Amino acid sequence: MARIVQKFGGTSVGDIERIRNVATKVKRDVDSGNEVAVVLSAMAGTTDQLVAWTRDAASNVDPREYDVVVSTGEQITTGLLAIILQDMGIPARSWASWQLPIKTDAAHTKARIRGIETASVETDLKAGRVAVFPGFQGISPDGRITTLGRGGSDTSAVALAAALDADRCDIYTDVEGVYTCDPRIVSKARKLERITYEEMLESASLGAKVLQARAVEMGMKHHVQIQVRSSFEDVPGTMVVDEDEIVEREIISAITYSREEAKITVAKVADKPGVAAAIFGPLADANINVDMIVQNVSEDGNQTDITFTVPEGDSLRAIDTIKQSQDAIGYQRIDHDADVVKISVIGVGMRSHAGVAQRMFKTLSEKAINIQVISTSEIKVSVLIAEEYTELALRALHSAYGMDVE
Amino acid sequence: MARIVQKFGGTSVGDIERIRNVATKVKRDVDSGNEVAVVLSAMAGTTDQLVAWTRDAASNVDPREYDVVVSTGEQITTGLLAIILQDMGIPARSWASWQLPIKTDAAHTKARIRGIETASVETDLKAGRVAVFPGFQGISPDGRITTLGRGGSDTSAVALAAALDADRCDIYTDVEGVYTCDPRIVSKARKLERITYEEMLESASLGAKVLQARAVEMGMKHHVQIQVRSSFEDVPGTMVVDEDEIVEREIISAITYSREEAKITVAKVADKPGVAAAIFGPLADANINVDMIVQNVSEDGNQTDITFTVPEGDSLRAIDTIKQSQDAIGYQRIDHDADVVKISVIGVGMRSHAGVAQRMFKTLSEKAINIQVISTSEIKVSVLIAEEYTELALRALHSAYGMDVE
Repeated sequence: MARIVQKFGGTSVGDIERIRNVATKVKRDVDSGNEVAVVLSAMAGTTDQLVAWTRDAASNVDPREYDVVVSTGEQITTGLLAIILQDMGIPARSWASWQLPIKTDAAHTKARIRGIETASVETDLKAGRVAVFPGFQGISPDGRITTLGRGGSDTSAVALAAALDADRCDIYTDVEGVYTCDPRIVSKARKLERITYEEMLESASLGAKVLQARAVEMGMKHHVQIQVRSSFEDVPGTMVVDEDEIVEREIISAITYSREEAKITVAKVADKPGVAAAIFGPLADANINVDMIVQNVSEDGNQTDITFTVPEGDSLRAIDTIKQSQDAIGYQRIDHDADVVKISVIGVGMRSHAGVAQRMFKTLSEKAINIQVISTSEIKVSVLIAEEYTELALRALHSAYGMDVE
Repeated sequence: MARIVQKFGGTSVGDIERIRNVATKVKRDVDSGNEVAVVLSAMAGTTDQLVAWTRDAASNVDPREYDVVVSTGEQITTGLLAIILQDMGIPARSWASWQLPIKTDAAHTKARIRGIETASVETDLKAGRVAVFPGFQGISPDGRITTLGRGGSDTSAVALAAALDADRCDIYTDVEGVYTCDPRIVSKARKLERITYEEMLESASLGAKVLQARAVEMGMKHHVQIQVRSSFEDVPGTMVVDEDEIVEREIISAITYSREEAKITVAKVADKPGVAAAIFGPLADANINVDMIVQNVSEDGNQTDITFTVPEGDSLRAIDTIKQSQDAIGYQRIDHDADVVKISVIGVGMRSHAGVAQRMFKTLSEKAINIQVISTSEIKVSVLIAEEYTELALRALHSAYGMDVE
């Protein structure tokens, strides 16, 4: 007997028939003698509608009331699943986040989970009752509803799995697992049997939308066994595990891409100490996440260009912020390019293998693809290239690293 | 300065523009220096959709989970109104029923309010903050969400007005007030300036859908000044008041009708003691609300017919229940007629005026309308007639009682 947390996303609970399908997954694990807790998203589209209403309502939306509105979708799906399970003869009940409670901080619309009181749910689970939780939400210290930000249901599931000391956290989604590359682009991509937390974390941060980065981080911290698997096909998914659980390591596990990047170049700034701080300080204050940064070698020793990337949605705000600091920075021009893609190769094997980055550069060069920015970490190499080369680059790299399925 | 509770129904909060219109009504009362609490229904159609989902989900719906699902619509509208009010510069916050709490019994889907803890809201109201509440819901003794049954938002509003010791409870709706008769049928119907709780209670029970009977009952008990008024036209509505506040009494205040009746005749039952109990006992046990009852005079002293009405939606279940008791009752035949309408004349003045019923019978007789069943109380006379005569009967009676607007 094991204790299993199952998490289903918006597509998996998109209508009553699909919620019924979710119930059969619950039943299967219950029938095998397991204790089962379920975490649900809202029906696909519901949260978008709720967000749209708050936008139509006002230009300045009180984040506390925003959370009141957008948290309702999950309440609906939890009740419906409990109804269906009981109708199938499986004891079940829904739990609102205030009924446990799931405690978060007070950062409305992007709250972080601080702790979960599980005493009452424990009793229920041990009595063989399935517990159904709304993902994406919690309760602030002063007792108001909070939400965790888009995609927060993954985080809810892993946090509940940790709090309930679950043996496994199954993330059911509309893909069959984690792939070496996006199979819609690279037909020879392969589903991974296992991937390490660190690689998964990099994948999530670098554009693969399978699992939220915060959820992986939490899983890594609390050693939660996460499995990414399909809601629709009954096949094994991908296990996210500690590095030492992977016996035979590939050098590269995954190649990811993200089109949601914008490149900003601040041209002809004085090449002197303090200039980088003058640019990136105000951006940090404005809560804009700067990713890749490169500073060109100064041609004449006096002036240089500083190039960096930000999320595409923040780029106009970033430019405004820099303009407001023009005096402090003393630049001549700001260039902006949204037609870029960040491509990353990820793998813990990189640590013990030289030449990984070199192979990437060589492969792209052979296809005449110009690399605009490079950034590296211990287990990944990312490059920024023109967006039009996305497919070409992904396929060439997948093949060059010997990852193609025969 | 007064304390006012405003209640808006589903049509009045049907979309963002209409919620904005609600906000202007709140602003008007706030600007006049009042403390304002607001009770909202879900957007028109939302609750129907939620109920439909629970029906699609299962044939046996757990009422506790039903309440979890169908209570979400009001959470959405309260959040949206609070957002709009704040955007207009009016301090406001939404309150979930568990945040007060609004305590009910455990009768899920038709719970009754037991008490409301208002301490935290009091502080807010006194600080000039508008409090926005979801109608139709509360919290059971074991901390689960309950709903009060369809139309329960009126009851929520009056209960909150009583608990907050409000000076007035304004029920905003899509009609301008309480009319002497349905103006869609009787064009000469007149809006009443005042109506007594008792008359309003009879009207609500007898088919006028302006205000829920339970809300009127609660208003009467706690002496809440209720005003029924329009969300869309800025005109005075109808005040529901104690009888002694009405100086010049009309004999008849209102004529109502209800098509949602079904007539059942249990034919040729033995005319002996205990037969009525054998019929109505099982119906009561099955929670079927029997309204009008008539027992025919026995022709031969041995057998009689018993006729009664039940809500149309319960009629098949009522017939089944009687069939199961056939041995105890010993009837020969059951007849069933859903094409009937109950027409009622209501007025506290009836107590001191003879001949009210007689005028009703005479008027209907002059139009050759056959009366099938009669029932009376201290302040109303109801008759059951064939449904096809509805309009004819209402117009004739409205005129006969001298209620027509010139």
